[in-house]
Amino acid sequence: MVQLDGVARRIIAAIKEQIHSGAYRPGDRLPSTRVFAAEWGASRTTVTAAYGQLIAEGYLIVRPGARAIVAPGLEAASVEMSAPSDLPRNLSAFARRLLALPAPLEPQPARIADFRYGELAGSDFPVLAWRRASNKAILQRSVRLRYGDPQGASHLRGALQGYLWRARGISCAPDQIVIVNGSQQGLDLCARLLLDPGDRFVIENPGYPMARHAFVAAGGVALPLAVDSDGLRTDLLQPARMAYVTPSHQFPLGGVLSASRRRSLLAWAAGTGAYIVEDDYDGEYRHDIAPIPPLQVLGPDSVIYVGTLSKTLSPTLRLGYLVVPVGLRQVFSEAKRLTDRHAPMLEQEALADLLSSGAYERHVRTIRRKNAERREILLQALTDHFGPKVTVVGADTGLHVVAWMDGIDAEHELAIIGAARAAGVGLYPVSPLYDPTEPRPETAGFIIGYAGLDAEALRRGATVLAAVLAEHQFGSAQVHGDR
Amino acid sequence: MVQLDGVARRIIAAIKEQIHSGAYRPGDRLPSTRVFAAEWGASRTTVTAAYGQLIAEGYLIVRPGARAIVAPGLEAASVEMSAPSDLPRNLSAFARRLLALPAPLEPQPARIADFRYGELAGSDFPVLAWRRASNKAILQRSVRLRYGDPQGASHLRGALQGYLWRARGISCAPDQIVIVNGSQQGLDLCARLLLDPGDRFVIENPGYPMARHAFVAAGGVALPLAVDSDGLRTDLLQPARMAYVTPSHQFPLGGVLSASRRRSLLAWAAGTGAYIVEDDYDGEYRHDIAPIPPLQVLGPDSVIYVGTLSKTLSPTLRLGYLVVPVGLRQVFSEAKRLTDRHAPMLEQEALADLLSSGAYERHVRTIRRKNAERREILLQALTDHFGPKVTVVGADTGLHVVAWMDGIDAEHELAIIGAARAAGVGLYPVSPLYDPTEPRPETAGFIIGYAGLDAEALRRGATVLAAVLAEHQFGSAQVHGDR
Repeated sequence: MVQLDGVARRIIAAIKEQIHSGAYRPGDRLPSTRVFAAEWGASRTTVTAAYGQLIAEGYLIVRPGARAIVAPGLEAASVEMSAPSDLPRNLSAFARRLLALPAPLEPQPARIADFRYGELAGSDFPVLAWRRASNKAILQRSVRLRYGDPQGASHLRGALQGYLWRARGISCAPDQIVIVNGSQQGLDLCARLLLDPGDRFVIENPGYPMARHAFVAAGGVALPLAVDSDGLRTDLLQPARMAYVTPSHQFPLGGVLSASRRRSLLAWAAGTGAYIVEDDYDGEYRHDIAPIPPLQVLGPDSVIYVGTLSKTLSPTLRLGYLVVPVGLRQVFSEAKRLTDRHAPMLEQEALADLLSSGAYERHVRTIRRKNAERREILLQALTDHFGPKVTVVGADTGLHVVAWMDGIDAEHELAIIGAARAAGVGLYPVSPLYDPTEPRPETAGFIIGYAGLDAEALRRGATVLAAVLAEHQFGSAQVHGDR
Repeated sequence: MVQLDGVARRIIAAIKEQIHSGAYRPGDRLPSTRVFAAEWGASRTTVTAAYGQLIAEGYLIVRPGARAIVAPGLEAASVEMSAPSDLPRNLSAFARRLLALPAPLEPQPARIADFRYGELAGSDFPVLAWRRASNKAILQRSVRLRYGDPQGASHLRGALQGYLWRARGISCAPDQIVIVNGSQQGLDLCARLLLDPGDRFVIENPGYPMARHAFVAAGGVALPLAVDSDGLRTDLLQPARMAYVTPSHQFPLGGVLSASRRRSLLAWAAGTGAYIVEDDYDGEYRHDIAPIPPLQVLGPDSVIYVGTLSKTLSPTLRLGYLVVPVGLRQVFSEAKRLTDRHAPMLEQEALADLLSSGAYERHVRTIRRKNAERREILLQALTDHFGPKVTVVGADTGLHVVAWMDGIDAEHELAIIGAARAAGVGLYPVSPLYDPTEPRPETAGFIIGYAGLDAEALRRGATVLAAVLAEHQFGSAQVHGDR
């Protein structure tokens, strides 16, 4: 396993400082990992992990067969970036924690296929239904335009209550539902209401970085726990204030939390007084397996259920919802009011219309079928081109798979990404989803989203990827020999 | 002046406890202020102030000529309300501060006229233009549905840059603009990024409660400063991390911050390193006076400018924007991303369309004229019915006025409101806008919003109000004699 240890973190800090100070300038080539490792007296694995982190944070870029270079555009950014002496005056501790988080990867244009996860095809959006519902909402505006209920329009919450019961077996009162601007706002509200600086939170490793970031920015201290094919390793649980889990489809590896682990997790919550944040981010997409009821159903007093419309309608709408324990209703409602009053009303009205007319459920059936087809095509293409050289996990549900490149060392992840990008394919590594303080996997792995691509792009993307790998002959032999 | 002092706060806590414990039940009548004052050995003024606060928080209601009663519906709410022993387990300090804030007044239906401030007439919404722009945005969706820029769509920020220059004389780069879900989110972001628990912030007294709440919930300690007809009394400034001001139209009293005070405030910020949050909540509405350039123009490195579409389009859209100093751009952008990724894209697209086509500015001209007419009608009706018995302030700009009922003691505010409500008129007191730790005004005063009402409602509302006052003969004589 590649460990992002203390040495790696010091290397990262040193390189950032060189970039901020102007010692390294955009376009400059860095020493090879071999040379750098010798200079620092560190293992080459450590240096590779440090470079990998800097690439993930956008400081460095790699091209196939060449050394890493300092990313362009850092001149302008460096004034504002994270060297402590450059911080603007008088920022809060929250702001300082926020600026210390790794910068997100920006999407890169990809000619042939972009496998970026979390995006949908524009052609899947129910344009006619949304336009009709939206126009109706605009015309039906009330005599007075006034602030709405911070928890959301009551008829939307009523319609969602019915949907959640039918689709996910959740039995809740509309009063327990809080409409939020996408699940990210739900996670941020949980962070603000349930964590004080220094409080520990349990998070899956690997896991969803934007959840981790929300909790860390609130001052929480991550307690990353390993996952396996049954989801979170609940045998590793320790006392904490909160646990963030994706029990229906562990993000990104796809395990489904087993029944016994569900009981363990709920017992842990009951015993410690912790809350469980259940992110059911793609619960609508089940391919080969039977529906799994959410944790919320088993522990409605301990679980905050997070739902989203980003995977069925569009991530650009910014619509999501929470189902909160009865005892937390008031504080979530007041927090939503203070944060931004309430979600935009026209979108709430349009969604309520789609839910109550049945149009939403029809749409979900359609898009579920389309994505099942995309998944089949992708899995077939991966089998055709890679056969046993790739292990695909997490394909039972959701809109992405993780592909492990057996026999290829994780060290090559970034070179493969660079080569794929040069060939017109957007590819994204699994390794940045691992907790920065924990070991990373040995094998190169990629998170492959397919919901945004059509059949041809999926097939051509897999073909190009196979050609890239064949051409460059990334392997583990020379690396192992090198260690 | 009526002081909400330590005694008043103990009275408030005691009554809440009685209500939560069930000792007082909904519909129960409270002792008269005279009796209660005798029981507690407190002045009747103190008891009246405590009752007033409880009415403002929704614990008590009053009807004309009758004693205060416990509000209905408190049985169900009491389980969740603010008695500390009833708090849910494991809440953060932020959550506990949030629950300690006074609950907002819920709007009450009013048969004849609701003078509630902050609402617009549904008939003023540019339905056709918004529908056209919105449909265009739905059709123009891109090939991939993906998360957008956390600061907002670049063409919206480009269009806003032009608008801000033309309408408000602000010269900024699109990169300094952050699209937020209404100004409340802008205030909350300022609170999170600029205040740590225990930090002091300057706020106008009286002032905007939702701003105060955002800063107090973040752990800020209010430094309320008096205002006069020239706005904030900058001679009273003390060191703080932040100042929140409404320089173009002091909320609620309407003073315009004078040129010399603007200079003082900016010098204070430069000297102490504090940031100034400038809330230009109704800068589009100038009636009798020339445009006043925002503070931001004079101090772009110290001022965070907060703008909103809630007063020109609709408060239900939840669209606002910040103009931040260049040095704060990155941290605001990252905070917005962490908070909820970005504002909903369709609404951003629709607004960008309205701004770049000129439709928005045409709409602003129309609604400005309509509101100027409403204002004329209201001012005339107040003059006709009350003559010199009412002093109206803050009428030069904006969508509300404050009416001081000369010769009527503030003690009668709540009885007047109750009598007005019984007669079909929604009326809202100024006193809750004063800092709870500071003296309150002696004279009864009301904040009268007119943007949601038509000519007939405005005239009939004023007529009914005059009749209510005449019938009940609220005065100051008996009160003064009583003290």
